Formats: sequence, structure tokens, C-alpha cells
Amino acid sequence: MNRRSLLKGGLLAGLGLPFLSAGDVLAKPAALKKKAKNIIMLVSDGMSQGTLNMADLYAQRAFGKTSAWMQLYRDNKVTRGLMDTASASSMVTDSAAASSSWGGGMRVNNGSLNVGPKGEKPQPILQKFKETGKKVGCVTTVPITHATPAGFCVNINSRNGMEEIASMYLNLKFDVMMGGGADYFGTKRKDGSLLPKYLTQGFKVVENKAEMMGYKGNGPILGIFAPDGLPYEIDRKNTPQLLKDVPSLAEMTSKAISLMKDHKDGFVLQVEGGRVDWAAHGNDIGGLIFDQLAFDEAVAIAIDFAEKDGETLVIITTDHANANPGLFSGSKADKNFDSLQLFKHSNQWVLNQLNRTSSPAQVMELIKSGQGMLISDAEAKNLLTHFSDIQEGQLYNDEKLPFYEMAKMQFKHTSVGWAGMDHAADFVEIAMFGPGSEQLRPLIKNTEVHNMMLHAAEVAEHYLVKA
Amino acid sequence: MNRRSLLKGGLLAGLGLPFLSAGDVLAKPAALKKKAKNIIMLVSDGMSQGTLNMADLYAQRAFGKTSAWMQLYRDNKVTRGLMDTASASSMVTDSAAASSSWGGGMRVNNGSLNVGPKGEKPQPILQKFKETGKKVGCVTTVPITHATPAGFCVNINSRNGMEEIASMYLNLKFDVMMGGGADYFGTKRKDGSLLPKYLTQGFKVVENKAEMMGYKGNGPILGIFAPDGLPYEIDRKNTPQLLKDVPSLAEMTSKAISLMKDHKDGFVLQVEGGRVDWAAHGNDIGGLIFDQLAFDEAVAIAIDFAEKDGETLVIITTDHANANPGLFSGSKADKNFDSLQLFKHSNQWVLNQLNRTSSPAQVMELIKSGQGMLISDAEAKNLLTHFSDIQEGQLYNDEKLPFYEMAKMQFKHTSVGWAGMDHAADFVEIAMFGPGSEQLRPLIKNTEVHNMMLHAAEVAEHYLVKA
Repeated sequence: MNRRSLLKGGLLAGLGLPFLSAGDVLAKPAALKKKAKNIIMLVSDGMSQGTLNMADLYAQRAFGKTSAWMQLYRDNKVTRGLMDTASASSMVTDSAAASSSWGGGMRVNNGSLNVGPKGEKPQPILQKFKETGKKVGCVTTVPITHATPAGFCVNINSRNGMEEIASMYLNLKFDVMMGGGADYFGTKRKDGSLLPKYLTQGFKVVENKAEMMGYKGNGPILGIFAPDGLPYEIDRKNTPQLLKDVPSLAEMTSKAISLMKDHKDGFVLQVEGGRVDWAAHGNDIGGLIFDQLAFDEAVAIAIDFAEKDGETLVIITTDHANANPGLFSGSKADKNFDSLQLFKHSNQWVLNQLNRTSSPAQVMELIKSGQGMLISDAEAKNLLTHFSDIQEGQLYNDEKLPFYEMAKMQFKHTSVGWAGMDHAADFVEIAMFGPGSEQLRPLIKNTEVHNMMLHAAEVAEHYLVKA
Repeated sequence: MNRRSLLKGGLLAGLGLPFLSAGDVLAKPAALKKKAKNIIMLVSDGMSQGTLNMADLYAQRAFGKTSAWMQLYRDNKVTRGLMDTASASSMVTDSAAASSSWGGGMRVNNGSLNVGPKGEKPQPILQKFKETGKKVGCVTTVPITHATPAGFCVNINSRNGMEEIASMYLNLKFDVMMGGGADYFGTKRKDGSLLPKYLTQGFKVVENKAEMMGYKGNGPILGIFAPDGLPYEIDRKNTPQLLKDVPSLAEMTSKAISLMKDHKDGFVLQVEGGRVDWAAHGNDIGGLIFDQLAFDEAVAIAIDFAEKDGETLVIITTDHANANPGLFSGSKADKNFDSLQLFKHSNQWVLNQLNRTSSPAQVMELIKSGQGMLISDAEAKNLLTHFSDIQEGQLYNDEKLPFYEMAKMQFKHTSVGWAGMDHAADFVEIAMFGPGSEQLRPLIKNTEVHNMMLHAAEVAEHYLVKA
């Protein structure tokens, strides 16, 4: 961690003192050709290699075109590498430590947000960029107070303090903060709704797609479109009311860019496909593929902007693998995979409508209508026996539903297998486009992304984290 | 497929006619800086991203150093990309179609070796390189007649024709062919042993490490060190007689290089870590990690040679993912993973010594002595119930042993999970070092590797496969 950064960028800035003196030099490695005025970092949370692959295969077979991310590879437009995602406490990171590695430039224990093992509190990267005069923001499909956006914004011991994080955002007054998580801002808070304070602070608060699209102001915007996480893309797309009210990740990304792109000192935006991770935790193939494709639409928006702009570094990656799914071999593999094109709903959507008293016929009918999948009476009966038989280690499974058994039953129909229901240690994919992308090497540590962003934007030297 | 290649390089050459006329131009794309005199292509068969990752993590924690493959990445010495591994018949390839994609430059149906869907028979790449005057060879830990080496050498409808492939090798008279598969050459053949013919053709035939190491001649060598596949590295290392008799993949690689390196026109060598795939099929973590590390030692040998030589292109990759294993999250993940350092034997070694009549105490003692793992009486009893309960879809499971249940039981102890017992469609890792490595792009089709090798070596234009 960089002490100077703490002292100058953190504490002193917090006291309202000047932090950039004439002696400070700009961070510009000789190798870099051009300064990045803007940075967009897109994170598909919990994306194993097989997730990236299956979304691309789905796009090829259903839409006749490759994913935007893979098209960048096919067109040789990016640099790319692998990233070692370990945290300070384990070879297998959680999203809080992962985002902190980028956001603070140091490895912290799982569960912490920019608070190091010895209590270090490196200044989060969006605070740094805000200080240098840029507009900054985050958009996500999970609560905007969740680990991945929060790791770019705040220092807090535990990621679980989402109400406290909502309070911290009020004071940070970042330009665009949009996603789910209304429960952490509104009347469900133990200290009452924060929203009046947000309004007093000058925020525009929007709670549906139309309100978001309608905002054209220059002041900060808080968008909260669901009590907790946004719906899975596959359910959002196929539920008229949700499609009307809830923006897609691409729509939030597009809006965030349009609100910040004309700022003279540029902007830095984090975009998170947060429910890719939740779908992996639930071994929920419909959730997974369509949220990865929704993320891919946001990639397309970002690249389209960056190609026209010419001064934008785009980083595309994930924070860690999750569940390591794959399309598995067999004479019916292709046909089974194509049957996913009949899916209209996630496993979560299906299972939420069932309980132990449902009949096998109800199960069969619901899975047929929601996923186009014909399961047997025996499969339906077996699934029903597991409604009280919850596996250990399932996160985000508030409803205590048999996600594991559902995915296991689906294997015969989809040929998609899963290695677990949690994060894995795999090295993950990272790609960069635009000015500063030449910094990427074949294998980096997650912490290196912090300085790469600072270098690309040529901020003052004291912002860099020293090894 | 390239008709000219067939006509000129294949048929005419087979008739002893000249195939390179004055009009033929050399294939040298403008971008390439330097010609590759030698090519070494290393294939870790069936290596998912998690396999590469866990072998590297194991090396870091057990030996205090990164794997040779990942060190190349850390040192920024290679170009790298992802490879789309599909075959003509499925998104999920088998090893025969995968090796044919490189070896023949076209996609064929699973199970075929360089025989296309319409009966096309593209000339295999080692035949091309042999014709241009290079020495050529293959070394592997599975039968030398197996799909991956055979895909560089022959055209045959079915990979299962391993006896016929052994006969084809006799006529091809390639310089170094070493691995397992004695059963396909010796007296177990239905038409009797081929070995006298090999000797008549001028081959040196070696059957153990000492004989291999002792050979210094200039003529072709056939090395067959086991009836079928070689033992898993973890079992070889910890069984004195095997360690004495059977060479490691690195030892075969080193010998192959030393036998071919002084040839004036250079050499082309394929190196296959073939049992990485078998271990993945068996969800056999000890087999997997140590065979991947044995492959990594071969990578180190190849790179060491190439760095000194300066005229060698090294390609490092896999043919497809398999089983998508991962080290999974949990408070004991690191500790559990480190317990693999106590493993002395594969699951195959353990299970081969048990049967339905074994006692739970015998199971517990064997797993304790072979893998340092303390399992409960209940776990032992449960494992024993599965000795007659074989899962479908397990390849290379001649012994009908409960590999699936063994791996499932181990999860609690190792934190390693598996998504299946077969190949997966994931895009896979490919890296290149040395002259010609600049051809690699972020995402390629497996078939592109064929021309990349030919381009790198600047062979005559007619050898190239046209799209």
C-alpha cells in the first residue's frame, strides 16, 4: 500500500487540504502511447471460462453471430491476459476482496472492502479519479451497495454493511450509481430512509427505466430499480412489467456514458454483470447464459462508444470463476444445448413457484411452459422430494430451493454440468481495448489493474500504489 | 482442404515423383520476422482452465515456484490466445478430431483422424514436414498410436484402429515415436508382432528408459514403454520399478530433441501429456495434477532448448477442456488443497486394489497410506457400495471402478470439484514462443494452427491448406 496516497489522497483530501503540489509528477510509463481520458471497466462477476464459452456458443447458434466480447478477440482488437484472482486470505477470493484488489491496489481478506489484513485503508480508485476531476460511477444488476461496486468506492471492514455503504455513497456524491438495492436506501433501513438526504444532497433519485431515461441533468444520479438484486435477464425479458420498469445492464451503461461523456476531464465507470455470479451459485443455466449475454450487450455499448471516442480504455474481465460449468460431450450435446433456446425463465423463477405440496404434474407443466423442457414423472417426483433437502454452501439461496437437484436433473436435457456452487481459484480472462491496453501482460495479479488504470489516465504519481 | 496439397504433397510424393517445382513460392507472410527451423508443439490433452490453474497453485505451494508454463506468462515471453476447439460433428470435440484440426488443417467428425465428412484426406502435417526434409516425431504418455499423435501422422476413418495405425507408422518411418501402446505393436496383435518388421525397416526399438537413454544413432526410433498408457506420473514417481523402467514425458522430450536437433533441415516434434485427459475422465486429482506437472517439465525442456537455439517455435496448448475441475471456495480451501501434497498415488491406484469384498478398514488404511487422507468409516462403507454401481459415460474405465464416487467423497477433503467426466466445449489456452509466435491472435480456430506451423517454417506454398 502507498502511504503517500493514504496521507495525501486520503486523509488530507478528507480534511479539505490541497493534495497535489507542483512537485508531483504525472504517472506516464514510457511505453504508453496515448492518455486515456475515460475508463470503463466491465466485470462479469463469477464468470468461469465455460460461462464465456457457452454464452458465445449460444449467440452463434441462436443469433448467428458471435458475442461482442469474442468478436473483439476474433478481430484482434484487444490485448488479453489471464488474471490471478487470489485474496489475502485464500487462493479463492470473494467479490469483496477481488474488487478491492482493483479498487485499492492491495489484497485484503475475503469479506473486506479496502481494509487490509493490518487495518490498512487504501484510497478506493473512484475516490482518486473523482479528486482528479473526473466524473465517476458504477452500474450493476445486483444492489449498488454490493461488493463489486463498493470495492471501487469505500473502505469498510465487512461487505455485509450494505446500509452503511449506502450512507457512505451519500457523502461521496459520485455521479452515477445505479442498480438494485432499494432496501438499503429506503424505509427498510433500521435508521429510516436515506432518500430524503440524497435529494437534499442534490441527487436525482430514479426508480424505474422511464425515470432513468428521462434524466438529462448534470448532477449526481442514484438509480435503484429493485429491492435487492435486479431480476435475471431471462425473467426480465419475458415478463412485460419487468421489461417496462427495469432497465437492462446495457441500458444503464448507455445512460451512464451519456451522462458523463461530455465532462471535460473525462469519466471512469464500473459496469458489473452481478447476477452472472448468482446464477453460477445457483447452477441456474438460463440465468447464467442470459445474464452473460446481457453483460455482453453492455460490452458492445462500451466498445461502440470507445471506438468512436478514441480516448477511452475499456477493461473487460471477471473477478473470479464460479461453478466452472461446461457443455459436455455426448451424442446429443449440440441438440441438448440448442434446447436452451426454448428457455423463457430461470430455474429460480420455476422453483419459486413450487413447494413440497406441488404435484408432479404441476412440476412437469411449469418446466414445460417456462423452459420448453419435457421431464418425466419420475424426475418431477424426485425434484419434489428435495424441497426440504437443501445443500450446504449455497449462497443467495434465500428461498431454500433445490437448485442443486434441479441442475443435476437438467444435465440429461442440456448437457451442461457444474463442478460446484461456489467460487473457484481458476485464473480468469481479462482483455483491454484502447489507450493503455498495451500494459496488459499474459498473466497478471488482480492488484496490478489498479495502477494500470491510474497509469493509463496519467494521474499524479502519488496516486500509484507501490508494491 | 487443399487439393494441390493432396495431389502434389500426397499422391505424387508417394509415387516418388518430385513435388516442388521451381514455380512454387515459399509461404512467408510479410509479418513474420524470422523463419522457424524447428517446431515443438506440446499438448496437455484434456486440460481445462482449472487444471492449468491447480497445477500452478500446487507448484507454488509445494515447490515455492510457479509452473514453467505460467512463468512464461509472468515473464511476458509468449503470445497467447484462446482456441475454439469444435469439430465438424459437434461443439465438443474428441482428441481425434482435435488433433486432425491441427494435423490436417480441417475439421473432421469426432472419432476420425484426418478423414473429412466427405471423405477428404488432407495430408497430415508431419508427412508434409518430413517431405520438406525435416526430422519429425511424437512422444506421449498414452499409446503412441493414440488420437493425438496419430492426428499428426496418418489418415484413417476411426481412431480405434490402433493396430492399423501401428502398421502405418512402420511405412512412414518417422524419426522418433515414443510412448505407450506395446499391445498394438507386439504379439497381442491379431496378425502377430510388427516389431521384426520395424527392425528390418531400420528402426531402433526400445522398451525401457535405459535403452532409450542409451540410443545415440541417426536412424528412426520406436519407444514403447507400457502395454497401453504409461502409468500416471504420481504412481510412476512413487513406484521404484516404474521410476527405473518408464521414462517421464520430460525425459522422452529431452531425448527426442537431442536425437533430432543437429539435423541440418530442422525438426518438428509433438509432445502429448496424454494422461491429463484420462485423469480428468476419472476425476482423479492426484493423476491430474502430477501429470499436468509432468507435462510442465516437458514445457521447461522445450523452452530451455528453444531459448538457446533461437530458431524454434514452441506451441503450448490443449486439445479441449475435460471435466472443468476447480479448487472451490470455503474456509478450508487452502488447507484442503495443501493436503494434496500428501498424495503418493492416484485414485486409480487406490481403487484397483479394492473390490466389493474389501473391508471398510482396508479402504481407510489404503487411502491413508496412498493419499495421506483420513476418511471416515461411513465414507469407506459408502465407497464400497459403489463397486458394482458404475456411472454411464466414463471412458478409460476398463476396471469399472467407482471413480465418480471416489472424487465426490474427496471433495470434503480436497475442495476440488468436477463438472463432469468428459470433454467440454470451453475455449482453451494456447501460447506460442519464438519465431512465428507473432501469428497468434486472441481467438483462433483450432484448424488455423496447421497453417501457422507451415508459415512459421516457410515451407512451399502448396502445403498450405486453403480455407
